Amino acid sequence: MPDLASSIQAVLSTRFGERLEIDAGLPGLDELARIAAHRVHRRYLAREVAPELLRLLCACALSAPSKSDLQQADILIVRDRAKIQAIGALLPEMPWVREAPVFLVFLANGRRLPQISQMRRKPFPNDHFDLLFNATVDAAIVMTTFLRAAEAVGLGCCPISVIRDHAATVSEMLALPEKVIPVAGMCLGWPAEQGGNAAPLSQQRRRHVSRCDQGDGDGSLDFANGIRLW
Amino acid sequence: MPDLASSIQAVLSTRFGERLEIDAGLPGLDELARIAAHRVHRRYLAREVAPELLRLLCACALSAPSKSDLQQADILIVRDRAKIQAIGALLPEMPWVREAPVFLVFLANGRRLPQISQMRRKPFPNDHFDLLFNATVDAAIVMTTFLRAAEAVGLGCCPISVIRDHAATVSEMLALPEKVIPVAGMCLGWPAEQGGNAAPLSQQRRRHVSRCDQGDGDGSLDFANGIRLW
Repeated sequence: MPDLASSIQAVLSTRFGERLEIDAGLPGLDELARIAAHRVHRRYLAREVAPELLRLLCACALSAPSKSDLQQADILIVRDRAKIQAIGALLPEMPWVREAPVFLVFLANGRRLPQISQMRRKPFPNDHFDLLFNATVDAAIVMTTFLRAAEAVGLGCCPISVIRDHAATVSEMLALPEKVIPVAGMCLGWPAEQGGNAAPLSQQRRRHVSRCDQGDGDGSLDFANGIRLW
Repeated sequence: MPDLASSIQAVLSTRFGERLEIDAGLPGLDELARIAAHRVHRRYLAREVAPELLRLLCACALSAPSKSDLQQADILIVRDRAKIQAIGALLPEMPWVREAPVFLVFLANGRRLPQISQMRRKPFPNDHFDLLFNATVDAAIVMTTFLRAAEAVGLGCCPISVIRDHAATVSEMLALPEKVIPVAGMCLGWPAEQGGNAAPLSQQRRRHVSRCDQGDGDGSLDFANGIRLW
């Protein structure tokens, strides 16, 4: 499929300023093309995201591997218009939040493991930093896998990191219990336009890849740049 | 494509104990099938992972969205056999680490932003928890996107969370500077077998999805389970 390889080459060249060698006979190039061409979507059609589709995407997202196999992520689905408006009202600089057909919140759940220990009448010795760390990584894994699944079927997403600036308010609105924290939100809908690619990303990421494979091999790496050989 | 829809249904039913409704006309079902059928691979062929393929996968992984657009993740590539052995020696219970054709470490890099601030002679007021939190989430996003890209082309992966149990040693071996931390490792290679699916995952995740869409709608959620409507 030379067309797919060329289109991946083109999109990665725009992103990183470098022409990568791509074997046109690789399987899965359609998926790589979607990953490479990822764009944020902030305008959505009035078309509904069917509940059974959302359920399928959640099941796919939760099929991802889990940090230390501990499954400490939750997906919270907000479809009620009034509730989406309430979240959007916290972020007036992002009108796409209140217009999103669906709003998701990816949660790090540090509560489930201690609860299971309690149910089983076992001590829970891991109530330290790793509980937060692992649950946060899990939420990010589930969110990223959800994003890939959503883009595969043609949906558009806009992750909303900035809910962290209102973490306490959002947690109260969502009635999150102790040790359950919002890691990121996400607008979801059928895209009404091609979507955008934040320019600073392309610029900065160019540096990430341009020094790939130039590792000095002695372990003294320059961490100003992204990919290094050890 | 009824075959793909049926195969996704079958794999998710095994994973979650529930038959999901799937529109056989959805685009991207091949990708959903790969996501749903994710398996960990711990045995690899002697076949090399070509450097240009690895470079392509890294470029795809770094095309993912970034927490707060701050791009605080690095991918560290270990191909040198002696160095892979040295990491594997820390994890004798996981012989697949020392046999992996390639070993990757996904790093949260909290050093780059302060460095950029310094280069630009600007103050850096964000040297608090969010620096760690955002960089950790970024590393997880990049790792997950790398995993998707690798599985798309037919490679097998085994994420290695347990390097966190040796975080200080691994950081010293990799000569990681202050504020750069290993979030997870990953074995990568061409799979020598079908791969496994940890049984406890299927069992536990069944509960995640089985209560999806049964939210009580009043915000008082039961966080023992994974997906909830608000």
